[in-house]
Amino acid sequence: MSDSKLTLYGLPTPNGITASIFLEELKAAYGGPDYEFVKMSISDADIGKVHNQVKADWFIKLNPNGRIPTIVHNGFPVFETSAIILYLASQFDKEHKFSYDPATDPLNYSEELQWLFFTHGGIGPMQGQANHFIKFAPEDIPYGKNRYLNETKRLYNVLAIRLQDRDWLTGPGRGKYALADIKTYSWVSKSSFIGIDLNEWPAVKAWVDRIAERPAVKAGSAVGSSS
Amino acid sequence: MSDSKLTLYGLPTPNGITASIFLEELKAAYGGPDYEFVKMSISDADIGKVHNQVKADWFIKLNPNGRIPTIVHNGFPVFETSAIILYLASQFDKEHKFSYDPATDPLNYSEELQWLFFTHGGIGPMQGQANHFIKFAPEDIPYGKNRYLNETKRLYNVLAIRLQDRDWLTGPGRGKYALADIKTYSWVSKSSFIGIDLNEWPAVKAWVDRIAERPAVKAGSAVGSSS
Repeated sequence: MSDSKLTLYGLPTPNGITASIFLEELKAAYGGPDYEFVKMSISDADIGKVHNQVKADWFIKLNPNGRIPTIVHNGFPVFETSAIILYLASQFDKEHKFSYDPATDPLNYSEELQWLFFTHGGIGPMQGQANHFIKFAPEDIPYGKNRYLNETKRLYNVLAIRLQDRDWLTGPGRGKYALADIKTYSWVSKSSFIGIDLNEWPAVKAWVDRIAERPAVKAGSAVGSSS
Repeated sequence: MSDSKLTLYGLPTPNGITASIFLEELKAAYGGPDYEFVKMSISDADIGKVHNQVKADWFIKLNPNGRIPTIVHNGFPVFETSAIILYLASQFDKEHKFSYDPATDPLNYSEELQWLFFTHGGIGPMQGQANHFIKFAPEDIPYGKNRYLNETKRLYNVLAIRLQDRDWLTGPGRGKYALADIKTYSWVSKSSFIGIDLNEWPAVKAWVDRIAERPAVKAGSAVGSSS
């Protein structure tokens, strides 16, 4: 294994594109790192159509939770989407173009963690459950659909409070486009899947549109779509 | 406001005790920080019985998500349980007795983040949904009960994989009792509430028992129980 080998095990899901968007932002800003992408299968129907599956023994050794995304960098495996982008920032975002230094900028770094955990423990799992009950559950359960759609909307209201006088979720003044924006965008940009109309929150809609037009976001969102 | 003022807005819930346990560990190890505890109400039935409620305007200014725990330290508010304990570690755990230095120990620090995000985005929300469907939902929905109980058990299996040859979730060798253990313990120690028997995972049971006997864990778990 070479000293600089980086592999991303992924899929173009909300969590998956968080990792590939940030890798493409790093390439656009710094010219690297290069990474190998391995498309994973997450359902029996996919096995054989894509390269690998997330419950295989070799993959559980990298990520005991059996989920994408996962990265391995110089033999060091990292799982959990938000931990992956924080690790990549610590290794490759040396000028803190998309992140904050925990030692020299501890309050902004804390705000970054606060908004990453907010999305990681709130929007991600709750919108994920809405996806399940609205699109995939084998039974029609209105209680489940309503519960998770309403909770997702409540969490979007929290984003709207945060963005009412800012351009980005973290950073002084109107903020700086950074990790929490990437992680949160990756979920909010997919909200039409469950019938959410972002025009209900104009500040959130404008923030999504600002992020969506970035070339690295377009490139990162496409990783794994056609391979 | 004094230079060293620290206030914890909380309740003795799984997320709430994560913060109070870590504050008690810091006091046991370092003699401080001192903190003021403000017990919050999270349901209409509590208002008037406890001090304050999480949807009040003054509280939303500290935490736009309207949840406990929240801390304010020297005027700086921190929300999201895992971000709170990481912030407290950065400020007060100067000898890294319960944490890892992001600058000098980046791989162990990444592992800490990985396991915090695993619990924050997995065990917390999924066990929380199991609590809801099993104990609180106004309708009996077997699909919801089974979905979240099974997912919680799957996540405990992931803990069991991690703990099969370790004493603690993070750190070299058999590991070091640290933030991810506190955060995860706060949920797993409450699993009997939804009928989970930890004897199904002996390594997880032994780990819970090791943590439960710590005096600071007993003290931190009791904060807010009788006030």
